[in-house]
Amino acid sequence: MAHQITSATNPLIKMLKALHAKKGRAETGLFLAEGARLALEAADLSAWPDILLYSPAAQERAPVRDLLERADAQGVRLIETTEGILAQIAKRDNPQTVIGAYRQRLAALDALDGALIVALDGVRDPGNLGTIVRTADSVGAGGIVLIGETCDPFSVEAVRATMGSIFAMNLARASLEELIRYKQARGAALIGASLKGAALGVDEALPERVVVFMGNEQSGLNVEMEAACDRLVKLPMRGRADSLNLAAATAVMLYDVWRRRGYDGARA
Amino acid sequence: MAHQITSATNPLIKMLKALHAKKGRAETGLFLAEGARLALEAADLSAWPDILLYSPAAQERAPVRDLLERADAQGVRLIETTEGILAQIAKRDNPQTVIGAYRQRLAALDALDGALIVALDGVRDPGNLGTIVRTADSVGAGGIVLIGETCDPFSVEAVRATMGSIFAMNLARASLEELIRYKQARGAALIGASLKGAALGVDEALPERVVVFMGNEQSGLNVEMEAACDRLVKLPMRGRADSLNLAAATAVMLYDVWRRRGYDGARA
Repeated sequence: MAHQITSATNPLIKMLKALHAKKGRAETGLFLAEGARLALEAADLSAWPDILLYSPAAQERAPVRDLLERADAQGVRLIETTEGILAQIAKRDNPQTVIGAYRQRLAALDALDGALIVALDGVRDPGNLGTIVRTADSVGAGGIVLIGETCDPFSVEAVRATMGSIFAMNLARASLEELIRYKQARGAALIGASLKGAALGVDEALPERVVVFMGNEQSGLNVEMEAACDRLVKLPMRGRADSLNLAAATAVMLYDVWRRRGYDGARA
Repeated sequence: MAHQITSATNPLIKMLKALHAKKGRAETGLFLAEGARLALEAADLSAWPDILLYSPAAQERAPVRDLLERADAQGVRLIETTEGILAQIAKRDNPQTVIGAYRQRLAALDALDGALIVALDGVRDPGNLGTIVRTADSVGAGGIVLIGETCDPFSVEAVRATMGSIFAMNLARASLEELIRYKQARGAALIGASLKGAALGVDEALPERVVVFMGNEQSGLNVEMEAACDRLVKLPMRGRADSLNLAAATAVMLYDVWRRRGYDGARA
């Protein structure tokens, strides 16, 4: 059953607006995801929000009506509200007409499985982090391990940049020691991106299981992390630039690993 | 000879603050680039700012003192100012201690030369555009052609994302018709990224000259642009994501083209 809220000072609306801040997300365990398309994709992955807000206009679209019916059956709290309040929650002039508040879910490190895993240390920019989640999803990675002080994958900016892959990708937080134990237990090679490394041979085969390890935007992997790697790899560089943007470098690394496996599992 | 400004209402300071807006950049032909490192790299490429601002603290560093002397000899207008004013110009709490106002320079399309050129249509996000300029520099591309309503490469956000490559990369604006004439005159293949395309064979060789053509974040290349391409290429995709972030996709495309050429010219 839908409930109507038209006051921006309603406590629920205030709580949702507070999800832009780390404190609000930590206190509630929720995060915001915007757009009917995202909510539909999430539903296909059985990810239902705790709260789903929508404007009267949204309800005129058949896929949204269908989504709301299914959400209602799942016990989702449905809130019909104004576009003004949706704009306040999204902190945008032209907000989506559907916004969900979802429960943050991190996987246990041991739940991450697959021939290609991504590990990230100290990522600062939420747009980079979200873009990497999207790219990891695109190459069918088995998950992402966040090491150290990596920014919050559930911030509004990071979630936006994932374009829905936040619901498809397993994320785990772990220490460097836990990552080392994980890769040893799986027999995976830890391949770190580093300016101290060397380019891989163009046709060189990689081990069956690989963890690609990317460092922080400013300083890359630290010495201890580099020492933990089985291999340090430098991307070829020409021109004046001395490095790539982190999300761009990760995309090139991940596609390069996948190419060496003949793009197995690629969609036709 | 350095001049001191300590008032935020000084007309020159107001003009520099206005460079955050498209109007301010259009009226003056200038753009902002932040940081001593960037100014030094620009100087190495003989790019001198019209105006160079610095804090008294910056001047204590020998490389900055050297930069200021060289800039003075080049006739650059040197302004010593406060960190508060630098913060206002950068619109940041912790600004760089050196900020330059440089003249915007676009190249003529015919001045772009090389075996790999990037063409972009309708890019909306300045961070994506700046990241692509940095990546194009990293693979030694001969330049970037901006088609249609592509966002301003000289915005503060775009320039930041280039990490200095704005000074190294030739940028030209052109219509689709001009791009078609250009690639025909050079005998280059126009390769468009499109979901309607097919993946390239892993070891397939590409023509000697290639223009990689990337469309807008939301909708990709339009029908007319796709029709102008000699080849439409789709990146392999797996998982739930249906596309990559534009800057990530461009990085994968450019490195893929360069790999097929054995990463020729890569730095050791």
